[in-house]
Amino acid sequence: MDIETSLRPVPLRHRTETTAEFNQIPAHVFPEHTTREDDGAVSIAGVKLTDIAKQYGTAAFVLDEADFRNRCRRLATAFGGGERVHYASKAFLSKTVCKWVEDEGLSLDVASHGELQVALAAGFPANRITVHGNNKSREFLTAAVEAEVELIVVDSLQEIGTLSEVATSCGRTQDVLVRVTPGVHVDTHEFIATSHEDQKFGFSLASGAARRAALSCVDATSVTLRGLHCHVGSQVFEADGFVLAAERLLSLWAGLLQELQGEQAKALDTLDLGGGYGIAYMPDHEALDVEAVAAELLEKVAEAAYKMGVPRPVVNVEPGRAIAGPSMVTLYTVGTVKDVETSDRAVRRYVSVDGGMADNIRPALYQAEYDVRVVNRELAGELVPSRVVGSHCESGDVLVNDVPLPNDLVPGDLLAIPATGAYCYSMASRYNMMLRPPVIVVSEGQSRVMIRRETIEDALALEE
Amino acid sequence: MDIETSLRPVPLRHRTETTAEFNQIPAHVFPEHTTREDDGAVSIAGVKLTDIAKQYGTAAFVLDEADFRNRCRRLATAFGGGERVHYASKAFLSKTVCKWVEDEGLSLDVASHGELQVALAAGFPANRITVHGNNKSREFLTAAVEAEVELIVVDSLQEIGTLSEVATSCGRTQDVLVRVTPGVHVDTHEFIATSHEDQKFGFSLASGAARRAALSCVDATSVTLRGLHCHVGSQVFEADGFVLAAERLLSLWAGLLQELQGEQAKALDTLDLGGGYGIAYMPDHEALDVEAVAAELLEKVAEAAYKMGVPRPVVNVEPGRAIAGPSMVTLYTVGTVKDVETSDRAVRRYVSVDGGMADNIRPALYQAEYDVRVVNRELAGELVPSRVVGSHCESGDVLVNDVPLPNDLVPGDLLAIPATGAYCYSMASRYNMMLRPPVIVVSEGQSRVMIRRETIEDALALEE
Ligand SMILES: Cc1ncc(COP(=O)(O)O)c(C=O)c1O
Ligand SMILES: Cc1ncc(COP(=O)(O)O)c(C=O)c1O
Repeated sequence: MDIETSLRPVPLRHRTETTAEFNQIPAHVFPEHTTREDDGAVSIAGVKLTDIAKQYGTAAFVLDEADFRNRCRRLATAFGGGERVHYASKAFLSKTVCKWVEDEGLSLDVASHGELQVALAAGFPANRITVHGNNKSREFLTAAVEAEVELIVVDSLQEIGTLSEVATSCGRTQDVLVRVTPGVHVDTHEFIATSHEDQKFGFSLASGAARRAALSCVDATSVTLRGLHCHVGSQVFEADGFVLAAERLLSLWAGLLQELQGEQAKALDTLDLGGGYGIAYMPDHEALDVEAVAAELLEKVAEAAYKMGVPRPVVNVEPGRAIAGPSMVTLYTVGTVKDVETSDRAVRRYVSVDGGMADNIRPALYQAEYDVRVVNRELAGELVPSRVVGSHCESGDVLVNDVPLPNDLVPGDLLAIPATGAYCYSMASRYNMMLRPPVIVVSEGQSRVMIRRETIEDALALEE
Repeated sequence: MDIETSLRPVPLRHRTETTAEFNQIPAHVFPEHTTREDDGAVSIAGVKLTDIAKQYGTAAFVLDEADFRNRCRRLATAFGGGERVHYASKAFLSKTVCKWVEDEGLSLDVASHGELQVALAAGFPANRITVHGNNKSREFLTAAVEAEVELIVVDSLQEIGTLSEVATSCGRTQDVLVRVTPGVHVDTHEFIATSHEDQKFGFSLASGAARRAALSCVDATSVTLRGLHCHVGSQVFEADGFVLAAERLLSLWAGLLQELQGEQAKALDTLDLGGGYGIAYMPDHEALDVEAVAAELLEKVAEAAYKMGVPRPVVNVEPGRAIAGPSMVTLYTVGTVKDVETSDRAVRRYVSVDGGMADNIRPALYQAEYDVRVVNRELAGELVPSRVVGSHCESGDVLVNDVPLPNDLVPGDLLAIPATGAYCYSMASRYNMMLRPPVIVVSEGQSRVMIRRETIEDALALEE
């Protein structure tokens, strides 16, 4: 049972084959409280998307608050407590989101000085913040130590040295995890186990660098080694990668426990296994079953610890996408509809919307696939091969590359692209001076602005 | 003779093989007025980059004003007049840039309502503005018509209809070009000629759609057909693609001239061949020789027109990258330097800087290659295989994937990545709440802020 389909099971299907199917909202891809109303308009959390468009304009992100919060709660339950689940704020961050995460009892993951500043501006409790980054400046480390964040995940010997100086001069002892590259990579369905990893993050397990880094933390003044961290990848759909990484980390951890004594050994209590829990972007995707994975992971860790004769570590995780991703849709208005001859016998319909690669770079950057539905009415026309494109002056500005759309779609219709809650707004640019859309929260029949639409004045204000 | 190397010829080389070579700034890749001073620090337009870093902090874009202006002038001369050269503002736009473009007598190309708003806010003369876009809203078209822009490049029959209504209700007649897909694609060194094009822009030449669209413009109330437009691609290094596209456009144009009479035929005077002029990102790149290409293009168009017995059209072009690209560098400070074992025998040095994919998405998005140099001093160490990475929480956040760097590079050294003037700032995001760097203008020994650094307050101000 996975987190989305468990809510309202739907038959998984490969792609829309009839207009009736097209009109049917795929429940496991859209926010939990999405419904097609009797008049054909789609609502989320009791608010019609047509009303959102009227009131706030398009393009707009629409965020189902209860969906976001429910995902927090399910993950907290699955992993045995909210404090174990660190929402990865890089996926989507705002002060309000920090409040929700706090309310739901989760911890928070920040990966830059800016993310830390937003969290602190929101009043998020620093003792539930973990700090990441491959290139933390002295200024950033100082801000983190002064704020009394719970954990800093150290990523280089240089950083351990700087942190030790910073913590000493702040008169504080900072708890840290060591970021380890365990030689496990998972990207969607591909799972690669190697020993060496050619990436900017972490210390290699295989080469002994991770062990040496951990011992440096133990030796460093004003630094306490609390455990190890790894992150195996994104859009992971199987437990295997997590389990292998956990087992590898655990053996290093057990080794360290043997080398350390007293307080130092007692402090060493945490394994953080990062994020990467896969979500359904398309009707034929099935989100990672987080309950099952959590159960398996915790069991395997307990088993392995028992075999090694060491106490069971606490397991932290850092999901970003699995919380924020499915909670939002992007709402666009159809502009130009144009048929383009692609050969003497084939035509493709290009449907342009009032947004594009500036508000969703993922299709261009990662060849990400998205679903799309018409949400102001039910359509009746025949399905024709179509492509949904943005308004940017770039031919690669494609949102949905290949999708059958009913041929009675017309300019002015409203489209929703689901599962845009993670890595869309947070990566949004102002390319072509297209200004960032607002983020509108919907909850119990009400809507409100979380983040307002950018204006041309915002852009011009930067120029003296 | 190409635009950059003609200024200060340098031997082209494949890659840096010695530290001495690494210390030598590749003149055709950096802004025109870049020099390594006697003390080893690099200056642009007489301003040391070390002073820029001290005064404004890093990351920062540094823009050589005279370089930008010189490129405008060379293109104007090459194409027989500034009014023929439309700077493609999508490459990099600010009010000051609009002023420079205006000063140099060039025209301007905007591709969105936002870009038009910036140009108008800068007081750029509307009668030198051409308006692009595959999805122009009625509101955008109205703003363009009301501002009395020179040309609108129409992209769909739907748009022709809307524009006709808008122009009529504004009591104005709007000159237009028809965007044509001539079946010519050029991307760097690849040149593909087809008949059909599967892309969102334009009307197909081969299918007759372009001719029909042109005739629709002729028939439309309050619209005057002025000519045809095409854009063959980006980073083009040979004239062939431009020439073939021009010849194809010209034959449609000649056909239209025969179908039209009197005022309608007289109005039809323009071919716009778009942008795409290639620049040198790497020492072994040689920028497109714009003078030679311009001469060849103009000659071929004149010849073909003569053969077809039609008057010679004026030829507009729309370079963006070839003007803005080489005029800027991005200045970064080295943070973490870390050696990572990539196999039992190999090590790669990871050099992290205080920026990354938020200020330059091109390596991640287009696998773009960049040069990089140390600009605060000359180095003396041996070259070691290195990778320059940003500070984002993403392993794909790489700026220079594989570069030999001297092993005496240390944290605190300053790096400059050249040729970042186009499609870097304009595509910049706030991913990981990394705020946009400033753009600093250097000119005749002075520096000043063009666009200030974003602050966390700018980001937080959007949340109510
Ligand atoms: C260290 C770390 N933790 C957590 C995450 C969040 O990943 P996801 O949003 O896929 O759960 C990432 C993503 O890049 C990461 O790098
Ligand atoms: C219509 C049009 N004109 C001009 C340009 C500018 O191209 P470049 O910056 O490569 O010269 C582009 C780039 O996408 C374009 O689409």
